[in-house]
Amino acid sequence: MKKIAVLTSGGDAPGMNTAIRAVVRRGIFRGLDVCGVKNGYKGLIDGNFVSMSLGSVGDIIHRGGTILQSTRCEEFKTVKGQQRALKEVEKEGIDGLIVIGGDGSFKGARKLTIKGLPAIGIPGTIDNDIAGTEYTIGFDTAVNTAVEAIDKIRDTAASHERTYVIEVMGRDAGDIALWAGMCAGAESIIIPEAHHDVEDVIDRIKQGSKRGKMHSIIVVAEGVGKGTEIGNMIKEKAGFDTKVAILGHLQRGGAPSAYDRMMSSQMGAKAVDLMVEGEKGVMVGLKNGRLIHTSFEEAVKESHMIDLSLYHLARSLSI
Amino acid sequence: MKKIAVLTSGGDAPGMNTAIRAVVRRGIFRGLDVCGVKNGYKGLIDGNFVSMSLGSVGDIIHRGGTILQSTRCEEFKTVKGQQRALKEVEKEGIDGLIVIGGDGSFKGARKLTIKGLPAIGIPGTIDNDIAGTEYTIGFDTAVNTAVEAIDKIRDTAASHERTYVIEVMGRDAGDIALWAGMCAGAESIIIPEAHHDVEDVIDRIKQGSKRGKMHSIIVVAEGVGKGTEIGNMIKEKAGFDTKVAILGHLQRGGAPSAYDRMMSSQMGAKAVDLMVEGEKGVMVGLKNGRLIHTSFEEAVKESHMIDLSLYHLARSLSI
Amino acid sequence: MKKIAVLTSGGDAPGMNTAIRAVVRRGIFRGLDVCGVKNGYKGLIDGNFVSMSLGSVGDIIHRGGTILQSTRCEEFKTVKGQQRALKEVEKEGIDGLIVIGGDGSFKGARKLTIKGLPAIGIPGTIDNDIAGTEYTIGFDTAVNTAVEAIDKIRDTAASHERTYVIEVMGRDAGDIALWAGMCAGAESIIIPEAHHDVEDVIDRIKQGSKRGKMHSIIVVAEGVGKGTEIGNMIKEKAGFDTKVAILGHLQRGGAPSAYDRMMSSQMGAKAVDLMVEGEKGVMVGLKNGRLIHTSFEEAVKESHMIDLSLYHLARSLSI
Amino acid sequence: MKKIAVLTSGGDAPGMNTAIRAVVRRGIFRGLDVCGVKNGYKGLIDGNFVSMSLGSVGDIIHRGGTILQSTRCEEFKTVKGQQRALKEVEKEGIDGLIVIGGDGSFKGARKLTIKGLPAIGIPGTIDNDIAGTEYTIGFDTAVNTAVEAIDKIRDTAASHERTYVIEVMGRDAGDIALWAGMCAGAESIIIPEAHHDVEDVIDRIKQGSKRGKMHSIIVVAEGVGKGTEIGNMIKEKAGFDTKVAILGHLQRGGAPSAYDRMMSSQMGAKAVDLMVEGEKGVMVGLKNGRLIHTSFEEAVKESHMIDLSLYHLARSLSI
Repeated sequence: MKKIAVLTSGGDAPGMNTAIRAVVRRGIFRGLDVCGVKNGYKGLIDGNFVSMSLGSVGDIIHRGGTILQSTRCEEFKTVKGQQRALKEVEKEGIDGLIVIGGDGSFKGARKLTIKGLPAIGIPGTIDNDIAGTEYTIGFDTAVNTAVEAIDKIRDTAASHERTYVIEVMGRDAGDIALWAGMCAGAESIIIPEAHHDVEDVIDRIKQGSKRGKMHSIIVVAEGVGKGTEIGNMIKEKAGFDTKVAILGHLQRGGAPSAYDRMMSSQMGAKAVDLMVEGEKGVMVGLKNGRLIHTSFEEAVKESHMIDLSLYHLARSLSI
Repeated sequence: MKKIAVLTSGGDAPGMNTAIRAVVRRGIFRGLDVCGVKNGYKGLIDGNFVSMSLGSVGDIIHRGGTILQSTRCEEFKTVKGQQRALKEVEKEGIDGLIVIGGDGSFKGARKLTIKGLPAIGIPGTIDNDIAGTEYTIGFDTAVNTAVEAIDKIRDTAASHERTYVIEVMGRDAGDIALWAGMCAGAESIIIPEAHHDVEDVIDRIKQGSKRGKMHSIIVVAEGVGKGTEIGNMIKEKAGFDTKVAILGHLQRGGAPSAYDRMMSSQMGAKAVDLMVEGEKGVMVGLKNGRLIHTSFEEAVKESHMIDLSLYHLARSLSI
Repeated sequence: MKKIAVLTSGGDAPGMNTAIRAVVRRGIFRGLDVCGVKNGYKGLIDGNFVSMSLGSVGDIIHRGGTILQSTRCEEFKTVKGQQRALKEVEKEGIDGLIVIGGDGSFKGARKLTIKGLPAIGIPGTIDNDIAGTEYTIGFDTAVNTAVEAIDKIRDTAASHERTYVIEVMGRDAGDIALWAGMCAGAESIIIPEAHHDVEDVIDRIKQGSKRGKMHSIIVVAEGVGKGTEIGNMIKEKAGFDTKVAILGHLQRGGAPSAYDRMMSSQMGAKAVDLMVEGEKGVMVGLKNGRLIHTSFEEAVKESHMIDLSLYHLARSLSI
Repeated sequence: MKKIAVLTSGGDAPGMNTAIRAVVRRGIFRGLDVCGVKNGYKGLIDGNFVSMSLGSVGDIIHRGGTILQSTRCEEFKTVKGQQRALKEVEKEGIDGLIVIGGDGSFKGARKLTIKGLPAIGIPGTIDNDIAGTEYTIGFDTAVNTAVEAIDKIRDTAASHERTYVIEVMGRDAGDIALWAGMCAGAESIIIPEAHHDVEDVIDRIKQGSKRGKMHSIIVVAEGVGKGTEIGNMIKEKAGFDTKVAILGHLQRGGAPSAYDRMMSSQMGAKAVDLMVEGEKGVMVGLKNGRLIHTSFEEAVKESHMIDLSLYHLARSLSI
C-alpha cells in the first residue's frame, strides 16, 4: 500500500472536510501518498485526481460542504463505468480508495473492492440512516441547525399563540426529526417509523392549551409527507392558528459541530489505519460508543433501526 | 402624565422585548407608572393590563418574540372597538400609550390619539417597510438570520455545483432580500422594487460559470412571487441543477442582534421622553442616522423607499 | 414513592435546565409529585422548596444555567447540616431526591441515602471528569463554545501569522482541552494527563512554519498552569509572535447543544424511572454509549480516565 | 488610472475581506486592474504583490481576518522605507492605493499621497475609534461577539447569584464597552471617556439586590485598567461573590455580521469610485448615516468622540 485516494459521494454533510483532512493527514503520517478525487465517482471515471499535501487540507476542519465536491454519476452504476474508473485508478497508481458518503456510495465501493481495488467506507450523511453504525457524519450538526431554527420559530409561536408544523430533513429515516423534536421540546413528533394520526397530534395540542400553553411545535420528518397537509388538517379539524415551516437545505451546511469534527477525525484516521493493516470492503462505524468496522454487505443489507424508546420518551416529556 | 401603557402589535420582531424593557425602565426612571397590555389592541379592548415593575423586564433584553404577545384584532378597526378600548384605558387610569409595531398598528394609534389618548409609535417589524424611518426594529436580526442561512446553503451549492433560489421574507418591501443578497454575495437579487427578468438571472449565472464559478445563489423577496417558479424557469431554460429554499418564519425569531438591541433601547426611551414632554400622535424613527419623530400621518402616507443604489452596487460586486 | 425533589449543585452547566425539565415531566408522567429545591444543598437545609408543575419547566429546555440555582454550602458537609436537611425533607414529605451536579455533590447525596433519603445522581458538569460515566451534562456545549471561540481566534492568528495560546476550562481533567484542541485543529494540546514540554510545542510550530503554515494554535487545559507562562516561554525561546487568550467563564453558559439536551432528557427521565423502581444511592451514567447506573461509591472512588488515544490521534492529524 | 492596489494594515477586523472583495470587484467593474499587497506596508516595501481576478475574492465575503494579511512594519515609518515602497509601486505600474486599516495606517497613506501615490483609506478596526467616521468596519461584529459572550456569562451569574466584571476590547475608546454593556443590559459600564468610581458601581449592585436581582454584570473597557482590580475592589469593599472574565482576542474574529458586510461593500466600492474620479488623500467614512469622505488630515487630527448620551441612557435603563 503506497498510495491511496479519497472521495466524497452522495449529499454533502458537515464534517466531510474534517474527514478528508483526517484521511490525508493520517495517510501521510502513516507514510502513504494521498490523492483526492474530485466530484465523487464521476471524477474516478474522468481521472480527476489532485495530489493532497499536508497543507492542502489546512484551514478546512471547520468548513461545511466538501472541497472534493460530489456529483451524481449514473455511468458509474454500469460495469463499463466501473471498468473505466479502475483503469484510471491503475494509471494513477492508486492502491486503495476511501469513500466518504452514504448507503448508495458503499454499493459502488463494494463493487470496486470485488474487482480488485480495496475500498473502505466512512459513513457521511446528515440522515443517520446507515445500518452498520449508530452515527453518520453530519448528523449532529444537522440536528443542531434544526434545533436552533426551531428555537427561533418558537419565539414567534409563543408571541402569537400559534401552532407551527416544522418539516425537517430525512426521507426514509426519522432520526433528525426525532432528535430535533426531542431537543426542541416539540409537542408532537411525526416520523415514518412510528404510527401517527393527526387526531393524536390535535389531542396533545388541546391538552397543552388546557393547562395554559397556547402554542405548539410539531416536528415532521420529510419522509412522512407534506408538512403543509398536516398543517392544513390541524387548522381545519381543530381551528388552531397554524403555520408551516420547511427547514430545507440549510440543514446540510454550516461549520461542523464539535462532535462531528471529533467523529470525522476518528473515522478518517481509522479508515487509513484499517487500510494500512490490509483491511478492505468494510465501512467504519460506531457501535456501543466504540469505533468498529463492518463489511459493506452487512452495512448495506440490514435497514437502519431508529431507537423508538426515544420516541416514547419524547412523548412523556412533552405532556 | 402619570401612567402609561405599552403594547406590541403586528408580526413579532426581535428587539420588541428590548423596546418593552426600555419603555418600562425609562418610564419608571422618569417617574411614571407603566403597565403592559397583553395581545396588542385586543388586550386594550379586553382590559388585559399587567403592572410592569423594574424586575418584570429583567432578563428579556435578549429574548426574541414579545412577552406582551400580539394578536390580530378585527374589532379594534371598528369605531365601537376603539370606544371600548378607550373606556378600559380610562378605567385603568392610563394617560398615554406606546405602540410597538408596524404600519397598520400606527393607524390604530393615530385614531386613539385623535379620540383623546396620546399615543406614540415605535417602528417594530422585520420588513423595514415604514416610510418615516430608515430603520425598523428587528430588521438587522432578520437580515443576519437570512445571511447565516444562505452562508450554510452556499456550502452545499459549492459542493454540488448547483444553483439555489432562496426566498426570504418581505411581502411589499425588498429590503431583507436586498441586504441579505448583498451580504451573502448573491449572484442575483430579485425584489419587487426593481425590474427583473429570468433571462438576466440566467445570463449572470452563465457569466459566472464561464470564469469557473459553478454555483450560484439567487435571493428572491417573498413579494415577487414563488421562488419555486423562478427555480423551475432557471432549470428549464438553462438546464442548471437548481434547488429552491424558502427561509420562512425562522427569520422572525431569535435573540436580537446588538444593533437591534441598541435601536430598541434608544427608541423605547425616546418614546417615553417624548411622551413626558407632551408630544403625541408621532412615531419615533431614524433619519440620517439620528433619532427623530414624525407624525403618524406622514409616517403612514408616503410609501417606504428602498435604496436602489444598493441594488446596483450589489450587481456590480457579483459580476 | 409519592413525592420527589430535585436540586442542582456545583458549577452550573448547560443542560441542567433540560435535566430539571425531564425530571419534573417524567416524574409527573409516572404519577409523582415533584418539587424543586432552590440553591442546592443550602436550600435543602433552609427548606427552600418550590412545587413544580408541568408548566413550571416550560420554555427552559434551551436555557443555559439552572433555574433552581446553585450555591456553595459548607454547612451541608457537617453532620448537623445534613440532619437539618433531612428534617426539612421529612417535613415537606419528600420520599426521594435527585441531585444534578458533579463529583462533590454525589458525596452529599451518598450521605443522605445512607441516612435514609433515597438519592439518585445525574452527572452535570462541563468538565466531563466523573469516573462512573463517559459523559457529563454540559460537556458538549462547553466544547462547542470553546471550538467556536478558537475558530474566531484562528482568523486573527492567520491574518497576523501569530501563535495563540488558548487556555480552556478543566482544572483536573483535560477533556475540554483535548476535544477542543482536536476539533479546532490545534497544533499542540497540553493537558494534565499527558507529559508535555514547551520544547516539543516549539518544535511542532517550527515544523509547521517550514511547510508554510505561519500561525499556530496551542490549547492548554486550565489545570496545567498559566497559559500566560507558556506563551511567554514560546515567545522567549523561539521568538514567535505569541498571544494568550483565556476563554474563561463563557464556556459555562449558553443554550445547551442538541447532544446535551438529548443526554439531559434521557438522564433526567432515567433517574426518575430508577427511583420509581426502588433504586437508590446510584448515579446515572453513559457507558459504551448506553445509559447505565453505578453506585455513588464506585462513581466517586475511581478517578476519571481520559482517552489518551485521542491525544495521540490529535498529534498525528496536526503534523 | 489603470491599476490600483489594495492592502490591509493594523489589527485585523471582520469585514476586511468583504472590503477587499468590494475593491477588487468594483475596480474590475470600473475597468481597472487590481492587485493585492500582502502583509500591509511591509509588502509594499517588499514588492509582495498578487494580481486579483474576480475569482480571487470569491467565497471570502463571510470570512473573518484578512486574506492579504497584516504585519507591523517599522521600516515604513522611515522616509527610506517609504521611498522603497514607492519604487516597488512604480515598478509594478500601480497608479493608486487603497488602504484598509486604522488611524495609524492613514498616516502612512497620507505620506504616500504627498509623495505622489494617490491613496484612499477605508476605516477598518473593531474599536470604532476614528474621528472622521461614525463607523469603522468590524465594530458591529465585535460588539455582537461581546454581547453573545456576555449573554452566556449571565447564565452563570444568575445561577450562582454572582457579580461578573467583564473586560472587553478598546484601548483608548470605550465604544465596544458602551455598546456591549447597553446591549447586554449591564448593570454598570466603565469607559475611559466617563468618570467612574467603584463606589458607584457597588451602589448600583446594592440597589439591584434590594429589589431581588442577585446577580450583576459590569462591563469594563480594556483601556480603563485591569478588570481584575475592579473585581477585587468589589469583592473586598462590598463582599459580593465576584468573578472576572476577559473576552480578549475572540472579539477580533468570526464571520462579519450583515451590517459589517454591507458597510464594507459600500465603503470598498466608494473608495474605488472616488479614485476613478481623481480623488486622493481621503478616507471614506459614515456621517449622519451617509457615506462621505474626509481628508486624512482631518480624519486623523481630531480625536474620536464617543456618544456620551448613550452612556447616560444605559444607566437609566439598568436601574
